[in-house]
Amino acid sequence: MKFYTDCYACFVRQTINAARHAGCGEELQHTLINKVLGLLQSLEPGITPPEVARKVHGLIRQFSNNPDPYKQAKTQCTQAALALYDDMKALIQKSPDPLGTALRLSIAGNIIDLGISDEHEDLWHTVDRVLVQDYAVDHEAILRQALEKADHVLYLGDNAGETVFDRLLIEVLDKPVIYAVRGMPILNDAVMEDALEAGLDKVATLIDNGADAPGTILSLCKPEFVEIYNAAPVIIAKGQGNYETLNDAGPKVFCLLQVKCPVIERDMGASMGGIILRQSSPQ
Amino acid sequence: MKFYTDCYACFVRQTINAARHAGCGEELQHTLINKVLGLLQSLEPGITPPEVARKVHGLIRQFSNNPDPYKQAKTQCTQAALALYDDMKALIQKSPDPLGTALRLSIAGNIIDLGISDEHEDLWHTVDRVLVQDYAVDHEAILRQALEKADHVLYLGDNAGETVFDRLLIEVLDKPVIYAVRGMPILNDAVMEDALEAGLDKVATLIDNGADAPGTILSLCKPEFVEIYNAAPVIIAKGQGNYETLNDAGPKVFCLLQVKCPVIERDMGASMGGIILRQSSPQ
Repeated sequence: MKFYTDCYACFVRQTINAARHAGCGEELQHTLINKVLGLLQSLEPGITPPEVARKVHGLIRQFSNNPDPYKQAKTQCTQAALALYDDMKALIQKSPDPLGTALRLSIAGNIIDLGISDEHEDLWHTVDRVLVQDYAVDHEAILRQALEKADHVLYLGDNAGETVFDRLLIEVLDKPVIYAVRGMPILNDAVMEDALEAGLDKVATLIDNGADAPGTILSLCKPEFVEIYNAAPVIIAKGQGNYETLNDAGPKVFCLLQVKCPVIERDMGASMGGIILRQSSPQ
Repeated sequence: MKFYTDCYACFVRQTINAARHAGCGEELQHTLINKVLGLLQSLEPGITPPEVARKVHGLIRQFSNNPDPYKQAKTQCTQAALALYDDMKALIQKSPDPLGTALRLSIAGNIIDLGISDEHEDLWHTVDRVLVQDYAVDHEAILRQALEKADHVLYLGDNAGETVFDRLLIEVLDKPVIYAVRGMPILNDAVMEDALEAGLDKVATLIDNGADAPGTILSLCKPEFVEIYNAAPVIIAKGQGNYETLNDAGPKVFCLLQVKCPVIERDMGASMGGIILRQSSPQ
């Protein structure tokens, strides 16, 4: 997905927020913002928001000397989601359509996104909403068909905490799943440690993609991951960053997310809060 | 008031918004944002947000070739406020404390602020809220004493539409009022034409301050205005921009505003939506 003019303001806001998460004082915040203002003035044409994000947050990690500014926030999100695990599991078990319910729960978990805001709708309230909401984009039937034929699934994770919601979906899929996390800390995106905290190792084979982008940019990922990506018959790609990088990655990729920013709203023609289950366009 | 780190993101957002109001296409928006990013990188120490705003919006006017990007929006705001004039007038007339009610209405009108967002709380809902809300900063008694002794009042306007609420307060003051508008279009701040649309010429002597800042920066104002400013026994200064430039302008200045941004929230220790009637600190 392209870099819209609204993205500039969002990245400046993200810089300040991330710098605070990294523990930077006001003077260092000013310095960091100035670095990012310079970076934003020299964007290559056609760059996507997650490519900009890795540069922005790379600067923040470097200048703050903090390798994982969102570490504490991520743990809090994972713990908050784990506290709901049993109740969500019960919802799925008593559902007449466990897969449909688990897909919706997985999308509900995408509300956790500290790149958008440090505050989000109460998790259980989101669950209640997403369970009954109409899909804004609904390729669920195509995904179900693809899943039936697939011998395994590659699952691209997004944010820490959302991981717990992903775990519930994986438990319903009832086939081998490879769960990929980011290769390096970026925003509140899940890395290996966060996936382990969510208990994903109990239900999937874990791999990191080797990259530091809040999305999946294959040219930056490690060969081992790219091989798994290429071999996967079905890919479930969670969240906005994966949508921004894989929206035209072809029909084996299914993006599951909520619409949380005006740029996605415009790009997708769906309203804020809309729930999306979208098969990617042909490459 | 100083330029906080949060102000960077706000100015980038304002740039995009103002460029759209000015009718700029996406390519020109990118160009303009790049100009503003450069400007934000080279801020002089101690600069205030309204000083930055005049530079930012000067660039927008220049590159968009549109001398008043918010013209249409301003007229809409004035008309929306005028539609409530009779009902608000009636509220004041039946109030046991007309001055107190009119002061609150004037603060209610400060909800109209397109620098913050193109959308604001419904005007009448704001009136209902502000009429009963406790002041977050309450120097009303000191202002009343000052008004009793004053032979005239200088009233520094803020936004178009808010002008109508100001008119209602001026009608209650029952003494000569000089109402000052900005000298050039900046954001949705009222200029002479907007004050006339609001009917302020019926209740006050109108003057423009000669400057293009969304606040009152005396060093940029024309000598005639500075003379009036210096001679005024009491000054009512409306809105965030006037607060940001006159918060320490001395005890004859009273700032009336609503808290609408996190920077003001922090600077003032008042919550969002808080209503402020504050005597300025000593110079």
